[in-house]
Amino acid sequence: MPEPGPYDVLLKMHSVGICGSDVHYWQRGRIGDFVVNSPMVLGHEASGTVVKVGSSVTTLKKGDRVAIEPGVPRETDEFCKSGRYNLSPTIFFCATPPDDGNLCRYYTHNANFCYKLPDNVTFEEGALIEPLSVGIHACRRAGVTLGSKVFICGAGPIGLVTLLCSHESRRTSQSDDRVDLSAPRLEKAKELGADFTVEIKKESPQELADRVKNTFGCMPEITMECSGAEASIQTAVYATRSGGTVVLIGMGPEMVTLPLVSAAAREVDIKGIFRYCNTWPMAIAMLASKKVNVQALVTHRFPLEKALEAFETTRKCVGIKVMLKCDPNDQNP
Amino acid sequence: MPEPGPYDVLLKMHSVGICGSDVHYWQRGRIGDFVVNSPMVLGHEASGTVVKVGSSVTTLKKGDRVAIEPGVPRETDEFCKSGRYNLSPTIFFCATPPDDGNLCRYYTHNANFCYKLPDNVTFEEGALIEPLSVGIHACRRAGVTLGSKVFICGAGPIGLVTLLCSHESRRTSQSDDRVDLSAPRLEKAKELGADFTVEIKKESPQELADRVKNTFGCMPEITMECSGAEASIQTAVYATRSGGTVVLIGMGPEMVTLPLVSAAAREVDIKGIFRYCNTWPMAIAMLASKKVNVQALVTHRFPLEKALEAFETTRKCVGIKVMLKCDPNDQNP
Amino acid sequence: MPEPGPYDVLLKMHSVGICGSDVHYWQRGRIGDFVVNSPMVLGHEASGTVVKVGSSVTTLKKGDRVAIEPGVPRETDEFCKSGRYNLSPTIFFCATPPDDGNLCRYYTHNANFCYKLPDNVTFEEGALIEPLSVGIHACRRAGVTLGSKVFICGAGPIGLVTLLCSHESRRTSQSDDRVDLSAPRLEKAKELGADFTVEIKKESPQELADRVKNTFGCMPEITMECSGAEASIQTAVYATRSGGTVVLIGMGPEMVTLPLVSAAAREVDIKGIFRYCNTWPMAIAMLASKKVNVQALVTHRFPLEKALEAFETTRKCVGIKVMLKCDPNDQNP
Amino acid sequence: MPEPGPYDVLLKMHSVGICGSDVHYWQRGRIGDFVVNSPMVLGHEASGTVVKVGSSVTTLKKGDRVAIEPGVPRETDEFCKSGRYNLSPTIFFCATPPDDGNLCRYYTHNANFCYKLPDNVTFEEGALIEPLSVGIHACRRAGVTLGSKVFICGAGPIGLVTLLCSHESRRTSQSDDRVDLSAPRLEKAKELGADFTVEIKKESPQELADRVKNTFGCMPEITMECSGAEASIQTAVYATRSGGTVVLIGMGPEMVTLPLVSAAAREVDIKGIFRYCNTWPMAIAMLASKKVNVQALVTHRFPLEKALEAFETTRKCVGIKVMLKCDPNDQNP
Ligand SMILES: NC(=O)c1ccc[n+]([C@@H]2O[C@H](COP(=O)([O-])OP(=O)(O)OC[C@H]3O[C@@H](n4cnc5c(N)ncnc54)[C@H](O)[C@@H]3O)[C@@H](O)[C@H]2O)c1
Ligand SMILES: NC(=O)c1ccc[n+]([C@@H]2O[C@H](COP(=O)([O-])OP(=O)(O)OC[C@H]3O[C@@H](n4cnc5c(N)ncnc54)[C@H](O)[C@@H]3O)[C@@H](O)[C@H]2O)c1
Ligand SMILES: NC(=O)c1ccc[n+]([C@@H]2O[C@H](COP(=O)([O-])OP(=O)(O)OC[C@H]3O[C@@H](n4cnc5c(N)ncnc54)[C@H](O)[C@@H]3O)[C@@H](O)[C@H]2O)c1
Ligand SMILES: NC(=O)c1ccc[n+]([C@@H]2O[C@H](COP(=O)([O-])OP(=O)(O)OC[C@H]3O[C@@H](n4cnc5c(N)ncnc54)[C@H](O)[C@@H]3O)[C@@H](O)[C@H]2O)c1
Ligand SMILES: [Zn+2]
Ligand SMILES: [Zn+2]
Ligand SMILES: [Zn+2]
Ligand SMILES: [Zn+2]
Repeated sequence: MPEPGPYDVLLKMHSVGICGSDVHYWQRGRIGDFVVNSPMVLGHEASGTVVKVGSSVTTLKKGDRVAIEPGVPRETDEFCKSGRYNLSPTIFFCATPPDDGNLCRYYTHNANFCYKLPDNVTFEEGALIEPLSVGIHACRRAGVTLGSKVFICGAGPIGLVTLLCSHESRRTSQSDDRVDLSAPRLEKAKELGADFTVEIKKESPQELADRVKNTFGCMPEITMECSGAEASIQTAVYATRSGGTVVLIGMGPEMVTLPLVSAAAREVDIKGIFRYCNTWPMAIAMLASKKVNVQALVTHRFPLEKALEAFETTRKCVGIKVMLKCDPNDQNP
Repeated sequence: MPEPGPYDVLLKMHSVGICGSDVHYWQRGRIGDFVVNSPMVLGHEASGTVVKVGSSVTTLKKGDRVAIEPGVPRETDEFCKSGRYNLSPTIFFCATPPDDGNLCRYYTHNANFCYKLPDNVTFEEGALIEPLSVGIHACRRAGVTLGSKVFICGAGPIGLVTLLCSHESRRTSQSDDRVDLSAPRLEKAKELGADFTVEIKKESPQELADRVKNTFGCMPEITMECSGAEASIQTAVYATRSGGTVVLIGMGPEMVTLPLVSAAAREVDIKGIFRYCNTWPMAIAMLASKKVNVQALVTHRFPLEKALEAFETTRKCVGIKVMLKCDPNDQNP
Repeated sequence: MPEPGPYDVLLKMHSVGICGSDVHYWQRGRIGDFVVNSPMVLGHEASGTVVKVGSSVTTLKKGDRVAIEPGVPRETDEFCKSGRYNLSPTIFFCATPPDDGNLCRYYTHNANFCYKLPDNVTFEEGALIEPLSVGIHACRRAGVTLGSKVFICGAGPIGLVTLLCSHESRRTSQSDDRVDLSAPRLEKAKELGADFTVEIKKESPQELADRVKNTFGCMPEITMECSGAEASIQTAVYATRSGGTVVLIGMGPEMVTLPLVSAAAREVDIKGIFRYCNTWPMAIAMLASKKVNVQALVTHRFPLEKALEAFETTRKCVGIKVMLKCDPNDQNP
Repeated sequence: MPEPGPYDVLLKMHSVGICGSDVHYWQRGRIGDFVVNSPMVLGHEASGTVVKVGSSVTTLKKGDRVAIEPGVPRETDEFCKSGRYNLSPTIFFCATPPDDGNLCRYYTHNANFCYKLPDNVTFEEGALIEPLSVGIHACRRAGVTLGSKVFICGAGPIGLVTLLCSHESRRTSQSDDRVDLSAPRLEKAKELGADFTVEIKKESPQELADRVKNTFGCMPEITMECSGAEASIQTAVYATRSGGTVVLIGMGPEMVTLPLVSAAAREVDIKGIFRYCNTWPMAIAMLASKKVNVQALVTHRFPLEKALEAFETTRKCVGIKVMLKCDPNDQNP
């Protein structure tokens, strides 16, 4: 059992969600420049209970239920100072090589990046703050606000959390029916509150953009691209209203061909996101208010012993979010 | 029956809400520098049906159900060009002297400031876009976003629409129990989704700010002042977290004494609002999505013939929003 | 001699600059979807003197020296209302087919889009507000502020005005020495205040980005792409610091291949600009303060009679800005 | 001689400017809630040379000339994470009780808050980054940009750095001629580039606001209040254009009476500032570009041995900025 450093807490882990990137590292051993060169613990969507606090920790105490923010900056560089610590090149990040994740029974983490959960927020909701944070950060960068017209491309877990985070908006979700499982995912989008859904046929990006406009009744101001597919990024540009924003959440091929004049001459901004920053307190406020049904994303649960089966489920894209339950004595949400 | 000018539409009026300012002009004949010197038609929260379009109108047609934005800029000045037309000093505004309002059977208005209502939005919802716009504009100026912690001072109609517009947020409403009718208004706030409510006792602004913090569990980032009372404005400053924003929606005495160092040295911004701009399309999207229950504000309805009774009801602060029904053949919401 | 409409002024033209787009329409008869189908007057960088005012004009009077904003919105649509009238699809724009420009002796224009020049601002400075506005709008969209580190790709007229508008910043200008005339243009950039200049060799975009970093001492936060060349846009992405912004001012081929993951995963925003809005008052304030030496851009002057020679000069890329002098009695700057 | 901790550097001090707050603590022993209860070293506008680096320091090395940012956050709280570390309630700040300042021969400081000076920036310019940062932060909060019309109330050191930081703007400085020394300070403002200056007579805030408008030719969009006087804050509100911003830099009495309806109903935002954050890199870029003549503020220099005389000079408001030279072997700027 690890001993917490002065600024750390030791946690008994409760729930850890499986992310596409976990499966990726497991199956292929790398994502872009991040290569797994030695055994690495997976897991970065997690919550647990404080069992021991480091000598300098004042903000948490034994017994506190917490959600874990997996990225902890190592240096006080210009990115940290200006509030965009997710861009700090030397940041520690759970389950991004060479940094270990938290899919285990006991785990230590910097206390400043563990956030106390109110009683009315479950451990699983706590674990889901990680993917939810991607949606929150994307919505913030896009300026989503009440009444925004938002178009969401891709209805995987990330597309769905983005949908949840743009709750006050009028939204269309879209997915590729040439990809298996698209229909049930759009069903889920509908269940989570999408005003419209669009299934993709064999049409060009421009034709699809037209169909979105017709379905919506107008061009969306904001498009959230959550698939990473080149065709979908092109659709995103054509579909977005002049003066609007395309947010690139999905990560696809290194080089992408874009209708750049269509974007530039209509002042459609193209903004990517890299993970998130400053989202946990906001997410906890959202969850405590019971206005965002993030729990609905969890379709499967496995005890930690059945981790392999859990990973297989995610690999096969069955369901949406698979949860691993790390506490043998408490397998509740 | 008036004839529409080339850029106008002639409307058959359906629903017109009564606003505090209407009562004010009726009772006292002035608000600040705006003085009623000759008979003036009241009413600026309105919706109706297009019965005739001016020769140059292309965006609307006979039979369209529309909500009316009461402010129409007269000049293309710097405020209009930069998208803040509400600040244009020569703007036309319904029922602000010397400009007539729209509490009547037939009324002409600039077609660019009439917005087509979708089928699933009622006339009364359309009329309520006017007060709702005050809340939308305030939320925008404050940067209210999902998970914001918002404190709303005053639970009159304006406090309540502001509550509705900050729907994704964690909110506390507060009102003055020394003022009659405070309790039922806080009840309404609770019904409309306030997470907490705070009734004011005989306490100082600082003490009240402390109580808000304790009730909330933290200091709110944003305070929406909707009463105009000096004590409440002081409370708003003390209650708001460092780096946050106080929005002054309520309009009180010309000169107000403020704890300015507390605001400045904690970088709590103080921002007023004057009506609204660019809110109707957003409000219609909100209402079409059925996520904002603005209809719940309507507590009384009167046919146009009983206007006097309707005005008396608002004057006595009974209920929240009183609606006048201008179409003898359709008194539905 | 045209008669001004009620909201127009009749102007005696003084100075009109020649723009790359004028040459383009002259030589090829089209730019993208804009096609010259019937004879069209060129010219959109202009200033003159009011000789007659329309019946409803109150802001100008005979004798006023004015700069002309060439884009005048025709409709009060959502773009106009929200202060981004440059995006209004039906806007009138001088010398964009089918709308005539102002390279002539007398010309009428909407009075709201003519701006009075102070005595200490010359007619030519007034005419140069048009290209300057492109730089101002780009700087605003990029958030250029004092001390910003700005990298400017391309040192044509547009690259140079962008340089002038980012005056408080630390700037590097870059140009392609494989293109003739690059060296003298970089000389001009140096003269106008560039802190560094970089001449492009036969290197890849990544290598060039590295060289920019080394020359600058750090990665620039903002890159202003003013050439439209695909290689330069790629360089712009690689060269820009994480969390920064690339502004696309240059307009190149419809489809462009970009290192999109490099931009998205480092949160480098990509923003285009389309002309400008709300820049004339700001530009006049800049020029009146004598802090921006825009006059230095003018390298050639021709009387209107020698228009052909003037156009040939611009077509050959000799010098920077060519001015046509429309008033036979006053050929001064 | 102190030994640097692992993240600190030991500095040989070179130049330390005297600030109004230093004089205040010296004379009165307190500012607001900050009380000097035990002997405290003064000084927080400083620069020096690294003579030893802590074991974990990688960004600096012996011999580096650095400017010192006096505020170093102690905790990674919500303010630090979101880039507004100046608002962190537990921040260390030089010469704010109980934290010692750096007016001494040798001094240790957190290496992350020491910034390497380029060769073309002097030690005194480095020390002046501290007051300059107040101006930078104020300009950023106000959104000062090229061509902004800025009105600066008060021409003390803080008014003058604010003037320097709004260099691209059209500015009026104002000061109170009932206060001694006002005239020479306005002279200095003129020298530093003020477009206009206004000397205050025995007039009301509204009358003064009118005079500012007449002198300026229009109402300024931004007013920077740098005196803290109630009358001046009132003038600031009246003088600022609808939709503009008043920045409260000067700190006056706890409670201030304001024309709040004039501010709120014209959407004039009131924003205070508390010191600064993220300004040193930007300031160094400004100074390296030689576009901001901050050196002109230094009117007096004393060797450290004559500290008392130096403090007396500041106390008497003679000149603008007094510099103490801490290195007996190098008393150059
Ligand atoms: N930017 C970040 O910080 C960040 C964080 C997490 C995930 N991601 C990325 O987000 C993306 C989505 O993650 P996920 O877990 O939801 O993945 P997923 O693979 O489960 O879901 C992707 C969805 O996109 C759909 N899709 C595929 N092609 C499409 C097309 N042409 N048009 C529309 N839809 C299409 C698929 O049907 C699928 O439902 C991935 O690229 C992932 O790498 C980025
Ligand atoms: N800025 C704008 O553009 C704009 C637009 C519309 C209305 N207004 C203003 O908004 C304010 C509210 O409008 P309304 O129609 O809701 O008015 P209202 O009088 O019906 O409601 C005001 C509420 O404030 C409460 N209150 C009074 N003193 C209080 C205190 N000290 N603390 C907390 N609550 C207190 C009262 O109990 C009452 O419920 C008015 O001042 C009105 O002029 C401004
Ligand atoms: N977005 C807008 O609203 C707007 C307005 C005006 C002009 N423009 C565009 O701005 C661009 C520049 O206009 P201009 O009048 O200065 O044109 P220009 O042709 O005179 O100048 C372009 C400069 O870019 C340089 N260049 C070419 N390839 C390069 C490369 N690979 N890297 C760096 N530099 C390279 C050339 O040497 C030349 O000096 C044009 O594409 C024009 O269409 C856009
Ligand atoms: N907010 C912050 O973080 C911060 C930082 C540094 C200083 N300050 C404050 O800034 C203020 C200015 O600092 P300073 O060092 O320049 O002080 P100073 O006393 O040297 O200068 C103040 C100037 O204001 C002028 N003045 C006085 N009354 C005036 C009036 N009614 N109208 C116009 N001008 C008037 C005086 O003539 C004087 O020149 C102080 O209040 C100081 O506490 C704030
Ligand atoms: Zn993940
Ligand atoms: Zn009203
Ligand atoms: Zn042009
Ligand atoms: Zn100081």
